[in-house]
This record gives sequence, structure tokens and C-alpha cells, in this order.
Amino acid sequence: MLFISENDVRKAVSIAEVIERVENAFLHYSRGLIQVPSRVTLRVRDENNDAIFLVANYRSMPFYGIKEASSFPTNMLKGKPTVMSNIQLYSADTGEPLALVSAVYLTALKTGAASAVATKHLAIQGNVSIAIIGTGVQARTQLEAVQHVKKLKELRVYDIDKSRAKKFAEYAENNKNSNYPIIISTSANECIENVDVIITATTSTIPVFDDEYVKRGAHINAIGSFTPDMQEIAEQTVVRADKIVTDNQEETWKVAGDLLVPLKAGKIDRTRLYGELGDIVAGKLPGREREEEITIYESVGFGALDIAVAVLAYEKSSLLGIGTEVNL
Amino acid sequence: MLFISENDVRKAVSIAEVIERVENAFLHYSRGLIQVPSRVTLRVRDENNDAIFLVANYRSMPFYGIKEASSFPTNMLKGKPTVMSNIQLYSADTGEPLALVSAVYLTALKTGAASAVATKHLAIQGNVSIAIIGTGVQARTQLEAVQHVKKLKELRVYDIDKSRAKKFAEYAENNKNSNYPIIISTSANECIENVDVIITATTSTIPVFDDEYVKRGAHINAIGSFTPDMQEIAEQTVVRADKIVTDNQEETWKVAGDLLVPLKAGKIDRTRLYGELGDIVAGKLPGREREEEITIYESVGFGALDIAVAVLAYEKSSLLGIGTEVNL
Repeated sequence: MLFISENDVRKAVSIAEVIERVENAFLHYSRGLIQVPSRVTLRVRDENNDAIFLVANYRSMPFYGIKEASSFPTNMLKGKPTVMSNIQLYSADTGEPLALVSAVYLTALKTGAASAVATKHLAIQGNVSIAIIGTGVQARTQLEAVQHVKKLKELRVYDIDKSRAKKFAEYAENNKNSNYPIIISTSANECIENVDVIITATTSTIPVFDDEYVKRGAHINAIGSFTPDMQEIAEQTVVRADKIVTDNQEETWKVAGDLLVPLKAGKIDRTRLYGELGDIVAGKLPGREREEEITIYESVGFGALDIAVAVLAYEKSSLLGIGTEVNL
Repeated sequence: MLFISENDVRKAVSIAEVIERVENAFLHYSRGLIQVPSRVTLRVRDENNDAIFLVANYRSMPFYGIKEASSFPTNMLKGKPTVMSNIQLYSADTGEPLALVSAVYLTALKTGAASAVATKHLAIQGNVSIAIIGTGVQARTQLEAVQHVKKLKELRVYDIDKSRAKKFAEYAENNKNSNYPIIISTSANECIENVDVIITATTSTIPVFDDEYVKRGAHINAIGSFTPDMQEIAEQTVVRADKIVTDNQEETWKVAGDLLVPLKAGKIDRTRLYGELGDIVAGKLPGREREEEITIYESVGFGALDIAVAVLAYEKSSLLGIGTEVNL
């Protein structure tokens, strides 16, 4: 069994490969080639500490696997990471455990790659201006992935923690793949005003911008709302959007506060959900059809993608001699 | 993170400790101190190859965990083990992965220990005669565990594979903890006739004995029927039994062929199930009440027990310096 550490993952995979695998996983899921049972969630103690287990079973590759992700806000006080994650891969031929893959960075790559796929299919054509709200760990892989599929005209960033926004802007400056200006905004509304692609990567429980600043034609990647009480997107934008797309419909109605809060308030019904990104990738549903549409990609987490990128990390690590072999 | 191999488990834990932990897990589950979400099962391909994921979340210990078990009959042709299993343990304080425990032998120990606990509470008082039908890997730990809680008067063994039965009888002879005769029976009915404690440890899909050979007062540990089409116990015995007890009621009605087959045939209804062993251990339900009762312990697999014994393996390994530390 191969143990692939966080550092091993960084050595083994590139964002281009991750985007390719994620787009393929969307496609294969839409074609019925990946079985994804309902997630198992645990409220670990009476605090806000949760653990989630996501399983995916491939028919298009000889693997099945399980991702564990723990989200422990109380770790902040202990000086420990608040999010930890790993993925265990098994051979679909023999049931043998093949690899244990450390999955914090891999999850961020996967989430960035999913936003890139959504942006490719749902954002306006041509070069785009981009706003990133929330400049924590996810912001880097979001930027890295999205600028892999779209040429940027401008990047705006905003964070309630100004020093973090500044640090991220420096990171972005050093990781540009073309020449575009980077602006640190003084408010979330200023950040998104008239912008083509908006990325929200916060853990907010209240919408982080006002609807009136969202321009016609904008595409939003909402990646932070993965519990029923989290909300990043203005409710009026959810009401007004032309197409709301998710990674997995079933899970969306269990966990995505962005949609569940306005649903419970009676402001939207379930028909607001246009469909799954996989069906757009597979050509079963049209992506963006008109210049002025407002589109939202609501990311809730989807084991099919996680296991697909873990398979990539395993294949590349095996090929390159990365990782630690341990006999169980 | 500590990796505990099959050999490490053998070094780290004793059957006495495993029985103690299993009985405690039954007790704590009955008291509502262990959360056990529904299992996730995968039919991995179109063959009979399955993977099962069992989660348990303790409130009585600072751990949560997940067991993966793969059952791949097609491995027989490949010269690989047909059953593989491991358990991943996490800290309930921080969400950190603490250990990956190889769990094939541990599962056999756990299953033996559960039979021992059932036998303690449900078999007749005093010394007992024991019949073991099916002398594969589970039979050894069944014998080891049950003779830890009951003094034996006689041991009878039966297997459709006579050489395997002979080998097991030799093993039993070398692992007696008191002086009792060991008999290799020529049929399953001869094996169980007039015996106090019957253990079935087969993967049979048809009942392995006839009801008329089951004496009044017998206790049966049925450990092999863990899919809806598996059956070890004569249907008439299921109809006639005074108390049918399981590890977990909810899972029983999903997977235990011993009860599901007669249920579907209309021979029993759900009230045939007396209750859970945990409630007997906790004193909420009486165990055996009369000398002549026929009792059945139907084992379907229950994450609460698996995680409990993995915690034991982890604690003992840490204490004794057993296992391999790997940084993720």
C-alpha cells in the first residue's frame, strides 16, 4: 500500500492534469459510469466539529475509494489545522487497498479544477475580469485553475482580513500566467462590481455581497457554502440567476445553504436548480447560451471528483517513484 | 499516523481484552453512547464482489472511525484472499487520523468475542458441549473466544471439506484450555445433535442443519449469514426459537438472510426478533430465562464493535511500541 503525503501530492500532480481528470469525472458521472452513494456525516461532538465520508465506485476505471474530511473549527484554538482529509483507494479487481492519499491540498486542487470546468462552460466567451472574495487556502488553487482555462483582464481580491488579502495579491502577482492588473478592493461589493467571474471562497454564514453589484453576464463560482447554515451568495442573485448548476443535485438539497436558506424562506423552489455540471460537460444540457445570462456554479463536494484526482495522484506517484510503501 | 499490520495486531491484543472491549461496546451502544450511521455497501463490479463501509462515532471514548471490508469471491481464482479489511481511526478531539489498522484477524477476533458475549448471556448455565460447523478462518477465534467464557464438556466439528475439519480439530487439540474430547462429525446434523452451543461459521446459502437435531435449551451463534441470500439456520429453528438476538436490529433486516428468507416466505414476522445483545448486556432485556429455551445470536456485523477493538489495537500498539509511524 502506497502512502502519499501532502508533499508527495505537490510533487506528483499538476493543475492541468487535475482539471482534465475532474472534467472526465463529471463526464463519466453523467454517463452513469460512477456510482456515488449518499455521504455519511458525523457531528463528532456537541461542538461544530464534523466528519464527512464520501464514497465513489468507478466503472470507467479499476478503482473505488473513500474520502474522509474532518472540519474542526475548535482546532483553531489548539493551533491545529481546522480541515484535514485523506482518501483511501482500492482496487476494483481485487478489493486490495492500494493507496492512502493525504487530501488537503488535493481537495483544494480538485475544487479549483471544478470551478475551472464550470467557468469554461458557463462564463462569457473571451478574456474575463475575475473577483475573488475570501483569500484563504482555497483562493490560490481557484486562481491557478481558473487562469488555466481563461485569460484574465483583471483580478480583484477582497478579504475581511486585509493583511491576508495583501498576501494573496502578492502570491497572485508572482503566479500570473499573463499580464493583468491586480487590485485589492476595500469592500466585497467594490470587488465584484461589473466583474465577469466571481469566486466566493469563504466560510460565511451571511451573503458576502449585494445583488445589485452583480452585472448581467456574470458567472459565480460559489465554493464555500457546504453546510445548510452557510451562505455566500445574495438571495436576490439566487432568485435572479438564469442558470444555477451544481456538482451533485442530491447533495445540494441536503447541504448547500446558498440554496437551502432561500428555499426555506419560500423565495425559490427546487426548479431554480438548472442541473448538474456533468450534464453540461456531457452535452446533455446547454451551458451559457446568451451573453447577458447570470450563472452560478454551486459547489457542495462530490466524491466522484475526489476519488478521480486521488487516482491521478496514485498513478503519477507510482510512475515517478513518489510516496512510501508500507506493508499491511 | 500509526500503521498496524496484521502481525502487529497479533502481537498487540489478547482475546480476553477483545471480549472486554466488545462487551463494553455493546453496553455503550445500548446506552446511546455510540452513533452508528447506516452502512454503505458497494457492488464493485457485476460479479459478487462487494465492499462495505461501517462508521462508528464514540461519545464514551475520544475516537471515531471507519471500517472497510471487501469480500471478493473472484479472488479465489487469483490466489488472493477473498476477504480484506482495514479500520481507520480518528481523534474525536481534533479530527486527525491516528491509525490505520489491518483488520482481517481483528474482525475474526471481534466476531469471536461477540459470540462469547452472546454465549455468556444466552447459553445454559454451567459447562457446555459445543458444535462448530464450518472450520475456516473464523472457527479458530470462535473457539478461542467461547472457551474463554464457558468451560467445555465436548467439542464437535464438521466441515464439508474433511481435511479442513481434521486440521481444525488438531488446532483445537493444541489450544484446549481444559480437558475435553474433540470429535470430527460425519454430518452437520450429527455434529449438532443434542449439543448446548452451536456455532455456524460458513458462507452457506442453504441451511446447514435440520431443525429436529437442535435440542431444547440449545444456543446458536450464527455468524455466517451477512447477505440477504445467505442462510445457515434451519427456517423451522428460526420459527421455533424462543429468543433471536442480533448485534444491530436495523442492519439485520437489511442483510441477514437467516431471517430475511423466512420473512419473505411469510414464515415469520419482524416480531420474531427479540432484541439487541447490547440491551441484554445493559440489563434492559433478560437474557436466557429458562433451561429449555432455544436462543439464537444472529451476527450481521456492527461498526461499533469493530471500531472498539481497533481502538484497543491502537492503544496497545502505542503502549508497546508496535506498528509503523508514517507522516502524512
